[in-house]
Amino acid sequence: MFLDIFENVRKKSPLVHCITNYVAANDCANIVLACGASPIMADDENEAEEITSICSGLNINMGTFSSARFSSMIKAGKKANELNHPIVLDPVGVGASTFRRQKALELIKKLKISVIRGNISEIKALSGDFSGSRGVDADDSDEMTLEKTAKLAKDFSQKTGAVIVITGKKDVAAYGERVCYVSNGSGLMKSVTGSGCQLSSLMTAFVSANRDKIFEASVCALCVMGLCGEIAEKRMSPYDGNASYGDYIIDAVFNLTFEEFERGAKYEMQ
Amino acid sequence: MFLDIFENVRKKSPLVHCITNYVAANDCANIVLACGASPIMADDENEAEEITSICSGLNINMGTFSSARFSSMIKAGKKANELNHPIVLDPVGVGASTFRRQKALELIKKLKISVIRGNISEIKALSGDFSGSRGVDADDSDEMTLEKTAKLAKDFSQKTGAVIVITGKKDVAAYGERVCYVSNGSGLMKSVTGSGCQLSSLMTAFVSANRDKIFEASVCALCVMGLCGEIAEKRMSPYDGNASYGDYIIDAVFNLTFEEFERGAKYEMQ
Amino acid sequence: MFLDIFENVRKKSPLVHCITNYVAANDCANIVLACGASPIMADDENEAEEITSICSGLNINMGTFSSARFSSMIKAGKKANELNHPIVLDPVGVGASTFRRQKALELIKKLKISVIRGNISEIKALSGDFSGSRGVDADDSDEMTLEKTAKLAKDFSQKTGAVIVITGKKDVAAYGERVCYVSNGSGLMKSVTGSGCQLSSLMTAFVSANRDKIFEASVCALCVMGLCGEIAEKRMSPYDGNASYGDYIIDAVFNLTFEEFERGAKYEMQ
Repeated sequence: MFLDIFENVRKKSPLVHCITNYVAANDCANIVLACGASPIMADDENEAEEITSICSGLNINMGTFSSARFSSMIKAGKKANELNHPIVLDPVGVGASTFRRQKALELIKKLKISVIRGNISEIKALSGDFSGSRGVDADDSDEMTLEKTAKLAKDFSQKTGAVIVITGKKDVAAYGERVCYVSNGSGLMKSVTGSGCQLSSLMTAFVSANRDKIFEASVCALCVMGLCGEIAEKRMSPYDGNASYGDYIIDAVFNLTFEEFERGAKYEMQ
Repeated sequence: MFLDIFENVRKKSPLVHCITNYVAANDCANIVLACGASPIMADDENEAEEITSICSGLNINMGTFSSARFSSMIKAGKKANELNHPIVLDPVGVGASTFRRQKALELIKKLKISVIRGNISEIKALSGDFSGSRGVDADDSDEMTLEKTAKLAKDFSQKTGAVIVITGKKDVAAYGERVCYVSNGSGLMKSVTGSGCQLSSLMTAFVSANRDKIFEASVCALCVMGLCGEIAEKRMSPYDGNASYGDYIIDAVFNLTFEEFERGAKYEMQ
Repeated sequence: MFLDIFENVRKKSPLVHCITNYVAANDCANIVLACGASPIMADDENEAEEITSICSGLNINMGTFSSARFSSMIKAGKKANELNHPIVLDPVGVGASTFRRQKALELIKKLKISVIRGNISEIKALSGDFSGSRGVDADDSDEMTLEKTAKLAKDFSQKTGAVIVITGKKDVAAYGERVCYVSNGSGLMKSVTGSGCQLSSLMTAFVSANRDKIFEASVCALCVMGLCGEIAEKRMSPYDGNASYGDYIIDAVFNLTFEEFERGAKYEMQ
């Protein structure tokens, strides 16, 4: 079902504007290239609007956040909205500081966001159901049943108008009343720094090439990332650890065939 | 002897706040994850204190240094001191500019630092025994006998109250009158950019999980890093170079068993 | 013919000051180490001049560009000119925003640049023959015959006094009336983010160790990078993708012998 969505990424090779953190920037650029799209990483407010104008989509990521980055996000975001480009927001560690939380809410208020992707702690912090935070990782105390997670995602989607993607052992995506569960993935992925940031960049490439199917494209990117996490895990030798594993995930995205994707994607639309 | 110290890192999985340079930030985050701890990389002064508050330790690193990063280091550092969190300072390239040297001295004056880790040129520049600098690497002219290095470390430790770690062919750690030599390591490590920065991040994880044994935890981190450098070297194939080697070091930290550690750690407490 | 140039890099091990983007900074530092030189990555204007003073060459790269980086580039650049250090400019994505284009022209006007290296779209945008841009990658519509590319490079070299290097399927280097074509390289290289930035850093190391042979040293660096792209491609296993490939390029630079270089370099001096 999603094959055409994946094909569109490689066929259209959308140019994706990423305003992202310096920890994961290299990996984010490489995973965008791996899926067949093209990244441009630029975060200065003097050029944010113009860079966005030549792109097809915008990825804003709140890791290593700063006031300067925020200004650029607003400028790029307004231009993206004007041009009807999709925006994917990754509220990295939004529960970890008041500054990030306030600025994230401001982004959501001032911009029309297409997709918000975070872990359960981040989405809870953002949606007001705030219970604490363990830095940039999900806090165990934030874990909920799949049904409750889906309800949270649906409610927040209806409030914001965005597709809400909550990643975890099982990923949940919601858009209005629609919900989809994705069970691809590997427990090893959380040992790679910025694997969530990478997913958000990949997702931006997918929605940029499929503007009329934002929800399906988000789910498709979830399946691709999770499946590549599985493929990468199978490739691990006894000496490999999280550093090699991170490279293997990007390698797997680079090599993923449409056939492998169709055979391996595990999602459940509701 | 150090087994419990290493075990504590994996058991407690401390959250470590890293204010570090953008060259090594990705590797620093991955090596912290590899040892079983959790990194949060955040350098904006609007959130520095709050981020530190939810962590167990603070790593401040002077690579790609700037005034903005300095302000964040001071804010985070004061909060860390207030909360009794250990601070590990990495004075990257401190001999290379007056700006870094002045700011490093200011950090040492305004904050209670638990551990200062650098190469011989950096520690000499910082301690006033300044003879020049070859950028971020140790200058050959700065090399001294092991005894003189130990004396420098002890003197500077007594002056600052911090554990002083000087890395080189043989590493020296000193705390007051105590000295320890670590002979783990590989000559290849200096061909990996930021391997020293990675060690400092790893060390922050170790001291964060062992606040009452700062000296032992520093030595333990030295052994882990050096030993993993040796393991990674053994894994090198003829086509591998410094890029793959860098990944192999982090992989080795990820896979290091307590048994390998006990068998491989080479230190001499005096 | 270029053997002595390559040997000089390893023999002199020049210290290279890189003011570069945070996406490619880690890879740039590692490739400089791989070729036998030593990098120092520092972009703050408080220390830009002093850092440059202890180095032998300066690399300025316009990726993730900002006003702050621009100030540092000017300060470091003026000091480098004063000390007669070569400067290599990489005008990353200069066609993608007015801000970058204006600042790049200002850099060229205010500083004596030794080498400008970009893809065809970047060099066209910079030289005034501007037709549009596809972000940081070359735009297909910008492709020209090799003769026209050579003419563009020669004209721009005569106008600026710099060696002009235009990378593409076949690379072109020009200096005044002299032209050289390099046919080393692999189509895979463009799937690695920042491979152009890495080349520019490598080139800075080569010209820094060969100040009296800037043109030959630029061509030599082109051959080394392209040849290592070929060696890395041969090493690819079916599971490897762009992430592993990126590491293999740096590994190949690390391992490249003078014999391999002499046998493999494919250039045509005119």
